[in-house]
Amino acid sequence: MRRRPAVLPLAPGSTLGILGGGQLGRMLAQAAGRLGLDVAVLDPEPDGPAARVSAHAITAAYDDPKALQALADLAGVVTFEFENVPAAAVAQLADIGVEVAPGPLALKVSQDRFEEKSFLNAHGAPTVAFAPASSPDEAVAAIDEVGAPALMKTRREGYDGKGQRWVEHAPAAARAFAELGGGPVILEAAAGFRRELSIIAARARDGATAVYPLAENHHEGGVLRRSLAPAQAASAVVDQAERIAARVLAGLDYVGVIGIELFEMEDGRLLVNEIAPRVHNTGHWTLDGCEVDQFEQHIRAVAGWPLGPTHAIARVEMVNLLGDEMQGWLRLAHEPETRLHLYGKREAKPGRKMGHVNRVKPL
Amino acid sequence: MRRRPAVLPLAPGSTLGILGGGQLGRMLAQAAGRLGLDVAVLDPEPDGPAARVSAHAITAAYDDPKALQALADLAGVVTFEFENVPAAAVAQLADIGVEVAPGPLALKVSQDRFEEKSFLNAHGAPTVAFAPASSPDEAVAAIDEVGAPALMKTRREGYDGKGQRWVEHAPAAARAFAELGGGPVILEAAAGFRRELSIIAARARDGATAVYPLAENHHEGGVLRRSLAPAQAASAVVDQAERIAARVLAGLDYVGVIGIELFEMEDGRLLVNEIAPRVHNTGHWTLDGCEVDQFEQHIRAVAGWPLGPTHAIARVEMVNLLGDEMQGWLRLAHEPETRLHLYGKREAKPGRKMGHVNRVKPL
Repeated sequence: MRRRPAVLPLAPGSTLGILGGGQLGRMLAQAAGRLGLDVAVLDPEPDGPAARVSAHAITAAYDDPKALQALADLAGVVTFEFENVPAAAVAQLADIGVEVAPGPLALKVSQDRFEEKSFLNAHGAPTVAFAPASSPDEAVAAIDEVGAPALMKTRREGYDGKGQRWVEHAPAAARAFAELGGGPVILEAAAGFRRELSIIAARARDGATAVYPLAENHHEGGVLRRSLAPAQAASAVVDQAERIAARVLAGLDYVGVIGIELFEMEDGRLLVNEIAPRVHNTGHWTLDGCEVDQFEQHIRAVAGWPLGPTHAIARVEMVNLLGDEMQGWLRLAHEPETRLHLYGKREAKPGRKMGHVNRVKPL
Repeated sequence: MRRRPAVLPLAPGSTLGILGGGQLGRMLAQAAGRLGLDVAVLDPEPDGPAARVSAHAITAAYDDPKALQALADLAGVVTFEFENVPAAAVAQLADIGVEVAPGPLALKVSQDRFEEKSFLNAHGAPTVAFAPASSPDEAVAAIDEVGAPALMKTRREGYDGKGQRWVEHAPAAARAFAELGGGPVILEAAAGFRRELSIIAARARDGATAVYPLAENHHEGGVLRRSLAPAQAASAVVDQAERIAARVLAGLDYVGVIGIELFEMEDGRLLVNEIAPRVHNTGHWTLDGCEVDQFEQHIRAVAGWPLGPTHAIARVEMVNLLGDEMQGWLRLAHEPETRLHLYGKREAKPGRKMGHVNRVKPL
């Protein structure tokens, strides 16, 4: 095992490593390229969206020790595009002397929904009531604790609405527990929210922080359909969101961009739905709505550069292109206010995120 | 030789070919990537700025028939980052059925300064007085025709002030002719201009055109130092520039983005200095000053897509980073109004264009 010399701040001409080669990795790689950095992508699938815009691609499992060593030989700084990176992979990279950001605490917290909500509450970031369960009996008891109806989710894995079930009353909890595979779950009280918001925040290696304006988000079938940003919001709401972001960033000793999903309740309080220790779909509007988008901001943070400005320069409606909606690309290209961002995915499976558009209007 | 089926408009997921892998090829590749296109770069040097952000790189001479066939096998549409592409390369690609844009006429005209100025005047785009010379005697006679002092330039090659000499009076013409190698030259009357402007224009495959706001350009030692855009200019000046652009685009039956360098004379008339059938250094401000920058605009045009909007959304000062000015990257990254665009070149030779910054202000 070779230890490497200090690499921060990562100078132009150096190589940045990215675990995960999908669309988020691709847009991170594109941002890194604009800053003069080369990119090395590690992904189990060959020829993915990020690999095709990067200088180096390693095709291997995320926890393949040889592949991680190969990545470390190229890149002194490594980041990731998704929160389910194996902890062992990050540990191996850190052992070699690679600067991995965001760090292991952010991954540990965000990989387990019970740990995540516990962490949030412990740091003054409110959530809905919740309770863990590891057996059918515990699931029934958890419903009694948080109230019905409640949302049962697997503690680990699952995204875009996968791995979750609504439970209408306590007797149904045992069946839902079985349907979700019988592993550890969390029960969450129903949030009677008015709307869903999110805040994209960033923290540099020196502890400096920055937040983008709020986005208002609309989901369909558990998948983000569109975001409007900057969201119309009372200043008290903005203040709460920024306070939550500051607490989360500090609590995680975070480096990089984080996405924080929020519920705005009828009484104007904000609750945290979940956090994602990475660039976030609800931040894609920043590509055309800000001078420094969330991808460049993340690269700046993990590379040890100063953060850039986060104010909005336009109003943006971001709409995801799912599955064969991609086929409308030429019609969309004709819309003067529409900026296209296509991910180069080979196959337009139903519901798959193939790209997004930002419809831009003056502030 | 295989002919290929029609490929226009080039759909996302397809591959676009680029001849030339420097910074212009790199920024074209980055724009293509955002639109979901893969890129194949052909360049004689391996591992260049464009290759490192592209899916495919072919290292070979531009006129290597096998390399051109390999490029054609990947890419149904090919463009270039520089005007000195060998005519034979474009002819071979066209023979195979590849859509090459801009076309051979634009290359032929822009590769020879005498042909270029003759073309411009024939199409109602005024220039300084000029005369060709192929011998010392002709050079002396040319000075008598255009007046002294005059600028002697090789008819072909030369850029950034290379391959040219000022001639103060007729007797000095013979010596300058020899110093420039004894090949065909052109003598250009001195232009008593007030300032240098440029207009970046685009023409789609269906003949639709678009122009960006004017840039005001400042050179040092023959190399572009900075551009200010949109330039402050009288509406009569803007009108002339747009008329010139329209004539040049139509006269060349052009497809793609073109850079047109202009002299603004003391009396407010515009003369064309030169045209570049490609994206242009004086258009780099559009990366942060427009919704659709010149690189995406060029990709849209050559790919058979509709053109995008060209209005300014910010005022920009573009400054080239030459040679070891690159070493100031961290200081520049601290400037909140400064957007960095670094090219990933390995070696910072004196005067080499290593990157540029756009300093952005509200309109």
